Amino acid sequence: MKLAELYRHVKPEAAKLEKEIESAIVSNHDVLERTSSHILQAGGKRIRPVFVLLSAKCSSYDFDEIKKVAVPLELIHMASLVHDDVIDDADTRRGRETIKSRWDNRTAMYTGDFLFAKAIQKAAESQYLDVHPILSRAMREMCIGEIEQLRDQYNADQSLKDYLRRIRRKTALLISVSCELGAVVSGADESLRRALKWYGYYAGMAFQITDDILDFTGSEKELGKPAGSDLIQGNITLPALYAMQEDKELNQMIRRYTNDPERAELPMDEVIRRLRNTTAVARSRELADAYVHKAVMMLKPFSGSDTDALVRIAHFIGGRRF
Amino acid sequence: MKLAELYRHVKPEAAKLEKEIESAIVSNHDVLERTSSHILQAGGKRIRPVFVLLSAKCSSYDFDEIKKVAVPLELIHMASLVHDDVIDDADTRRGRETIKSRWDNRTAMYTGDFLFAKAIQKAAESQYLDVHPILSRAMREMCIGEIEQLRDQYNADQSLKDYLRRIRRKTALLISVSCELGAVVSGADESLRRALKWYGYYAGMAFQITDDILDFTGSEKELGKPAGSDLIQGNITLPALYAMQEDKELNQMIRRYTNDPERAELPMDEVIRRLRNTTAVARSRELADAYVHKAVMMLKPFSGSDTDALVRIAHFIGGRRF
Repeated sequence: MKLAELYRHVKPEAAKLEKEIESAIVSNHDVLERTSSHILQAGGKRIRPVFVLLSAKCSSYDFDEIKKVAVPLELIHMASLVHDDVIDDADTRRGRETIKSRWDNRTAMYTGDFLFAKAIQKAAESQYLDVHPILSRAMREMCIGEIEQLRDQYNADQSLKDYLRRIRRKTALLISVSCELGAVVSGADESLRRALKWYGYYAGMAFQITDDILDFTGSEKELGKPAGSDLIQGNITLPALYAMQEDKELNQMIRRYTNDPERAELPMDEVIRRLRNTTAVARSRELADAYVHKAVMMLKPFSGSDTDALVRIAHFIGGRRF
Repeated sequence: MKLAELYRHVKPEAAKLEKEIESAIVSNHDVLERTSSHILQAGGKRIRPVFVLLSAKCSSYDFDEIKKVAVPLELIHMASLVHDDVIDDADTRRGRETIKSRWDNRTAMYTGDFLFAKAIQKAAESQYLDVHPILSRAMREMCIGEIEQLRDQYNADQSLKDYLRRIRRKTALLISVSCELGAVVSGADESLRRALKWYGYYAGMAFQITDDILDFTGSEKELGKPAGSDLIQGNITLPALYAMQEDKELNQMIRRYTNDPERAELPMDEVIRRLRNTTAVARSRELADAYVHKAVMMLKPFSGSDTDALVRIAHFIGGRRF
């Protein structure tokens, strides 16, 4: 089962949003248009626009207002990916060359800035005054999340709390904002708006934890990058933190790598074999499931066909295999 | 005479704006607050907020509305400086260490993003709906300007037109927007708004040309960096372009440098001596003066005490010595 099948009933609208995103990045400058198309064509699940759509479906759905928030959200997400690639020195993302690799770091940085500016432009079309403060808060928190990721990078002494704080800002917040803005632009009442905001937050936490599990359990083909890439880049995620608690040798192996300024090679096959022999993956899945449960509970008071798709997506996120 | 003396009559308001900028960058994250303060304390002329103030003085001045556009404009300017330093690999700016030098490139990039987000947050407080589209257009154009600067970097075959297009986007547009937004938030009528927008554009062109002249005529102490730094970084500005037309040896000297992938040392004393023996500085000043004249002419139909300060600032910009 693929994510797309879960939102079959909004497929025409999702396709229309895709067109809107494409036309939003049109620019009168050839390089910026090519770099922006490049990141757009690299694809992605477009989960933020889908969360806006599905959240808006719970109230008075109005596509013209939805696009004015769904497009900026995806553009902000894309901008953050482009800036991440500058920072991570990544040459590929989802199996494709990154902008910083095909062009250069400078072009990548300004492409990110350009996408931010385009997002603000699009959001300015919205008649809802809450949109800008909500989006700018999300952008600020994402920046803080990135700085925290830098601080925690290669730090084997970080706690679960550090990890959770990081993914909250890095991922959960923008998904939460997607659901909240879907509520805002469809005139949802205060209680539904609040419920959708928290639903998005919990679903976002589950989404990132699952992503971090897949980094150790997926194949290179599924991931578009070698398994264990996060750890190689010094991003110590939940499964690694759990596994380090259980397997002392693995713990030392990872510390040798993170403490070594030269970053001598980490024997990834061995790391993954050891990690799978611990309960790390199972415990990570448990935590993801707990977040899925919390997400679903937020929608309980509003149960009905409108929230069904969101409930199903939350469950899917918990168990997804790609 | 210093620029500050020209706007003595708005000094209390300028000081209040400075406080507003300081409080705008407060964050719940220590690194981002320190990096943001660092760039704030590096100073600068704050000409964008001053242009907002003086433009607003021409109509119904309302400080509470002014600050909601003046602060974002300065934050956007600061963000672009931080990103410039990443790109230029600059270790000092205005004689102080840059963020990328004291911290690192990654922190500098996210500090810039953070300042952009703070700018949007502040602008969202404005009741004037025109603010966001105007700001986002300026941000987009600035990104295009930066990409063009990369394209033209170390390109000795560029034309005057390339140079002018670049500084339009890099500098003139944000100053134009400062004046236009000053008009918008003080309820100026359409004709004054248009005049101020064009005044700002021409004053901004004059400002950047003067800056580019000073890079060759100022002392290291005045500039906070060695004379000729722009050229060393491959940024071929108006005086250099003019001088290259006149002095064939200088032309070849510069081409040897820009065409050499190793960037062997450019004998800057010799370059400056030769450049000063041409009419390059005089011709550059003439063009700056022509822009000053255009700026002043825009305000002619509105002449009176309100526009006096703007006229004086335009003249000052044309002849400034720092």
